[in-house]
Amino acid sequence: MKVAFTSDNIAGASDSVLQAMMDASQGDAIPYGNDELTAEVTGMLSAFFECDVNVFLVSTGTAANVLSISAMTPPWGSVLCHTESHLLNDESTAPEFYSGGARFVGVGGADAKIDPVQLKKFVSQKVGDVHSCQPSAVSLSQVSEVGSVYSLEEIKAITDVAKEAHLPVHMDGARFANALVALGCTPAEMTWKAGIDIVSFGATKNGTMSAEAIVVFKPELAKELAFRRKRGGHLHSKMRVLSAQMRAYLTDNLWRQNAEYANGMMALLQEGLKTIPSIKINTPAQANMLFCTLPEGMEEYLLGEGFAFYGGRWEKGVVRLVTSFRTPKEGVEAFINAARRFDDQG
Amino acid sequence: MKVAFTSDNIAGASDSVLQAMMDASQGDAIPYGNDELTAEVTGMLSAFFECDVNVFLVSTGTAANVLSISAMTPPWGSVLCHTESHLLNDESTAPEFYSGGARFVGVGGADAKIDPVQLKKFVSQKVGDVHSCQPSAVSLSQVSEVGSVYSLEEIKAITDVAKEAHLPVHMDGARFANALVALGCTPAEMTWKAGIDIVSFGATKNGTMSAEAIVVFKPELAKELAFRRKRGGHLHSKMRVLSAQMRAYLTDNLWRQNAEYANGMMALLQEGLKTIPSIKINTPAQANMLFCTLPEGMEEYLLGEGFAFYGGRWEKGVVRLVTSFRTPKEGVEAFINAARRFDDQG
Amino acid sequence: MKVAFTSDNIAGASDSVLQAMMDASQGDAIPYGNDELTAEVTGMLSAFFECDVNVFLVSTGTAANVLSISAMTPPWGSVLCHTESHLLNDESTAPEFYSGGARFVGVGGADAKIDPVQLKKFVSQKVGDVHSCQPSAVSLSQVSEVGSVYSLEEIKAITDVAKEAHLPVHMDGARFANALVALGCTPAEMTWKAGIDIVSFGATKNGTMSAEAIVVFKPELAKELAFRRKRGGHLHSKMRVLSAQMRAYLTDNLWRQNAEYANGMMALLQEGLKTIPSIKINTPAQANMLFCTLPEGMEEYLLGEGFAFYGGRWEKGVVRLVTSFRTPKEGVEAFINAARRFDDQG
Amino acid sequence: MKVAFTSDNIAGASDSVLQAMMDASQGDAIPYGNDELTAEVTGMLSAFFECDVNVFLVSTGTAANVLSISAMTPPWGSVLCHTESHLLNDESTAPEFYSGGARFVGVGGADAKIDPVQLKKFVSQKVGDVHSCQPSAVSLSQVSEVGSVYSLEEIKAITDVAKEAHLPVHMDGARFANALVALGCTPAEMTWKAGIDIVSFGATKNGTMSAEAIVVFKPELAKELAFRRKRGGHLHSKMRVLSAQMRAYLTDNLWRQNAEYANGMMALLQEGLKTIPSIKINTPAQANMLFCTLPEGMEEYLLGEGFAFYGGRWEKGVVRLVTSFRTPKEGVEAFINAARRFDDQG
Repeated sequence: MKVAFTSDNIAGASDSVLQAMMDASQGDAIPYGNDELTAEVTGMLSAFFECDVNVFLVSTGTAANVLSISAMTPPWGSVLCHTESHLLNDESTAPEFYSGGARFVGVGGADAKIDPVQLKKFVSQKVGDVHSCQPSAVSLSQVSEVGSVYSLEEIKAITDVAKEAHLPVHMDGARFANALVALGCTPAEMTWKAGIDIVSFGATKNGTMSAEAIVVFKPELAKELAFRRKRGGHLHSKMRVLSAQMRAYLTDNLWRQNAEYANGMMALLQEGLKTIPSIKINTPAQANMLFCTLPEGMEEYLLGEGFAFYGGRWEKGVVRLVTSFRTPKEGVEAFINAARRFDDQG
Repeated sequence: MKVAFTSDNIAGASDSVLQAMMDASQGDAIPYGNDELTAEVTGMLSAFFECDVNVFLVSTGTAANVLSISAMTPPWGSVLCHTESHLLNDESTAPEFYSGGARFVGVGGADAKIDPVQLKKFVSQKVGDVHSCQPSAVSLSQVSEVGSVYSLEEIKAITDVAKEAHLPVHMDGARFANALVALGCTPAEMTWKAGIDIVSFGATKNGTMSAEAIVVFKPELAKELAFRRKRGGHLHSKMRVLSAQMRAYLTDNLWRQNAEYANGMMALLQEGLKTIPSIKINTPAQANMLFCTLPEGMEEYLLGEGFAFYGGRWEKGVVRLVTSFRTPKEGVEAFINAARRFDDQG
Repeated sequence: MKVAFTSDNIAGASDSVLQAMMDASQGDAIPYGNDELTAEVTGMLSAFFECDVNVFLVSTGTAANVLSISAMTPPWGSVLCHTESHLLNDESTAPEFYSGGARFVGVGGADAKIDPVQLKKFVSQKVGDVHSCQPSAVSLSQVSEVGSVYSLEEIKAITDVAKEAHLPVHMDGARFANALVALGCTPAEMTWKAGIDIVSFGATKNGTMSAEAIVVFKPELAKELAFRRKRGGHLHSKMRVLSAQMRAYLTDNLWRQNAEYANGMMALLQEGLKTIPSIKINTPAQANMLFCTLPEGMEEYLLGEGFAFYGGRWEKGVVRLVTSFRTPKEGVEAFINAARRFDDQG
Repeated sequence: MKVAFTSDNIAGASDSVLQAMMDASQGDAIPYGNDELTAEVTGMLSAFFECDVNVFLVSTGTAANVLSISAMTPPWGSVLCHTESHLLNDESTAPEFYSGGARFVGVGGADAKIDPVQLKKFVSQKVGDVHSCQPSAVSLSQVSEVGSVYSLEEIKAITDVAKEAHLPVHMDGARFANALVALGCTPAEMTWKAGIDIVSFGATKNGTMSAEAIVVFKPELAKELAFRRKRGGHLHSKMRVLSAQMRAYLTDNLWRQNAEYANGMMALLQEGLKTIPSIKINTPAQANMLFCTLPEGMEEYLLGEGFAFYGGRWEKGVVRLVTSFRTPKEGVEAFINAARRFDDQG
């Protein structure tokens, strides 16, 4: 049996999302997002977040992130994000491109979460000094790149530092639903009530094919985005294909079911791996991603058994395991059993 | 009965394209275009164009155009395109954005087709003069923005001028299939055999939901594009959703059937309108788009009858009519009848 | 005797400017414009323009122009300027570079002066349409590129159109003093009282070695410029070298003397050429630049006689003649005599 | 007595430089660097560096640095420089601006000198991975930002790592002459013979008013620079004012005399401060800049005595002292005496 834990982007889409795409394709529709379906999605997201939001649908997470941030910083600004953030590590120089050449500065903090104490130093650094880039925005990732989840208090600690320095805050929510389920709070609580100004509301990793929403809570940040999305080439003519996915994702709590399932599989996986003495959990998984350190030889053994996952990119023995809304339970169990087998033999 | 001739992007997708998207969603797939389906599409496009091509799938036509061109010009270059081109009129400042601030210079020519004589002046203008932008690339639109189609000789006349000045040539093929069907030639004849170096191979207007291919005939122009696509935020994680659409589009000549149908509906429409004395055909439609001038009052009358189309953007009375792979034949006939009715009463 | 009428940038600097540079070099000074001399220049320019202005000294005219404009347009904006403007013809793609990829759109008008009627169409074109660049700023050149001078009424006609559309207006004043002397008005009258928001106040062509001032009348446009100047690499550490030049230029009406002299030489030259039947004055010179058409053979003859000027860039026979604060009167007379000689023989 | 050790950019220019500027202003000259004086400077720099070089004169050090680097990296590249480099700390986001949005990555190393072992990791990081910026160029500062000087072996160690990874290397030589004098080697030895491809050859801090040269050893890197300089607004019309300064700077070893004097004053200062027990030398000064830690109260005392220098920007008590070609010897002695006085009383 072959099961992959490489990423949650290897799965396809939920059935209801696919059906919605089919349905949306029928008949004519006004292009470029002026259709009824797109308007409906804005309404649904406003309900979801319990406030009037501006919504910009795009088809990739990188586009959502860098467009969001481009509305928050001038080209001479610095954007403060975690050293291990997706922005700084996995989006080429899209951040510099879209911001017109701003600087992206890595801030430290345990478990890939920004340390507010360190952040405090950065936000006031050389303010007003033309020789230095000017602190302009903060971006945090929820779920983080190592699978940790900011608590509401932790988010608030970050946004408090930012607000004191008059900086807007962006949340990279590529795994928004997974974090929400982990915290058991409302979308509003995890975002604008906690001081977030824009969120990249990810859906692609949790059940859609390619649909992400830039959700803007601060209306003045929304004005530019329609223009920026178009000039980035991210305004889809047949927008309804994105809207249909997003509507299905928000309907009947699909987002929650999928995230609960993915997180549940990870919980199962983590519990199992904890019982294996030779495996070290690096950052306890709160959502659907886990980094752990395998003993010598186990990585090769598991790969040989047909499991797929990423290793060899970090410290020796460190591997990343990600579950999704489609990860089979038997696959999780098989993985644990295989690991235990190796451990027993070792 | 309500029929829309506003654009070919108001239609959804062909059934086989939708089915392909469904099928492609099953099971896991390696993300970011390293999947088998994407490799297959490259093979299919190489066969389609009868040469080894580099392919970069993206989800919008603007992205295809501006990414293509960004690989062809330095930031101090000028890109020569028709004054009425999509690049210069409908893509915001995406061209400047992606090229790092090159200049897009309009060249004239009848029927929205670049005049090679005028082009000749531009390609050698102030070459080597640091004070002036440097002619760097040529872009032509096939089908043009007014619905005309370059003959193979006309394309060759453009590329000859460009090649003599050592400039690469891009084809904006948003309606590639419609042009191909109109000319009755092969894809190779209309592109690299005629001197084209990169084509934006459009499919969205002719049967897919959102899938366009940058097809590169000159390998050295392809090297940068993988990096440029990613930093533009246009590399889809679940690439298979694009690849599936493109495969279906290329399978069983779907592209041709759809284009033949759309062009056929336009031929029918044009023939009908020609019989109405008060209507003037501005540019004879060769593919699926027609610009004509209606007599006073007819535009309002037709809109009142429930037909949709664009007017009011050009000279008084000028309207644009576009047919698609889904335009109902009865709709075309109803439109002609309504126009005749008005004419008779007038 | 060899006299050059190629440009007013071929002359060196006035003696008092050179002496000021020498003097300014003595002793220490706080770098980057925080010195007393620079503050003094801001005061002098405020007095000169009869209002509190923000001043940003730079060393080239292109820098002054493109920095000014970068503060007036978003990257998705269009900047409206004359088809023959320096911005569109002689500054490479610096305008696109500094504006982050805005579009520069040529507007027509006789004598290289923007036609307000044509401008009116452009300022409201597709406003709010994300597919199209958004009219964002207007830039006019005083003196124009062909040597004509806008009257105060003509400037007002332009700025009225712009203000009605809520667009700021920039004046490229590379030959500001020459225009001022031609009009016989005050600096205030030619700028903010006529609706100008920023001016590139040129001095290099009229007596300094390399000193230009961006003068900002609208304080909100000034905020960004300190940052933009630095990131453009245009903040000089030893700013006093620029300030010293500008102070000398503003002292004892040097700017006026130099401009009156240059304009006077051009008046002399023009009067002389008018008396020669075979020469056609294309645009009557109001300041220090003249375009005229020479009869066949005269251009070569004059060049052969040792005179220097630009020809061969425009219609057949058209040449450009520019006088400066240093053009020798005997040189002007010699030129007229040579032309007459050729005419007599012809 | 008031003496400033804040920076070497607070001094004016050497007398021969000023005289050269005066002389150069006489008569007419072809603009934009096509004059004889500019050609002469290229010849002088070729002789200075013992090889044919391409030269681009500009008026600021930031322009020299960022233009140089823009020719070395694509917009999706990363440029590796020291964490404390001028590029990363004192040039706003000019590096991102000029490179079209590349990323500037800080590499560690003692005494603000890049550690070749750390560099080795960076140069091969994620090469070929479109998700990550691509290592493209290396930039080192000679003299470094803390006043240390790379030995020839140390430069070679850096360039060896770079060359193995096929990356070009830039030297920020804002204090080139000070480093050269410190090492006692030839310009060729410190640059191209050690693997440097482009140098920002600084003169402004060592005797000119505003003249820096981009000196290119690798001809293929020079092709773009003429265009890039113009579109950056850094092509001076009266280029001779820059060329005159540079010629004077290279004549009769002015550069050497000035640097030897400045370094000598620093040696004197350092020797004096070393004899004061409560002062700690942080990085031994090899050229004309020193970082040291003063005991509590001494900084305020010295400022109160009328000395000027930078403090309060780094760790508690750390101050920066810079000497120049004009620092008075009595000022150095007075500073030492004042420090000793405080120490004795303490």
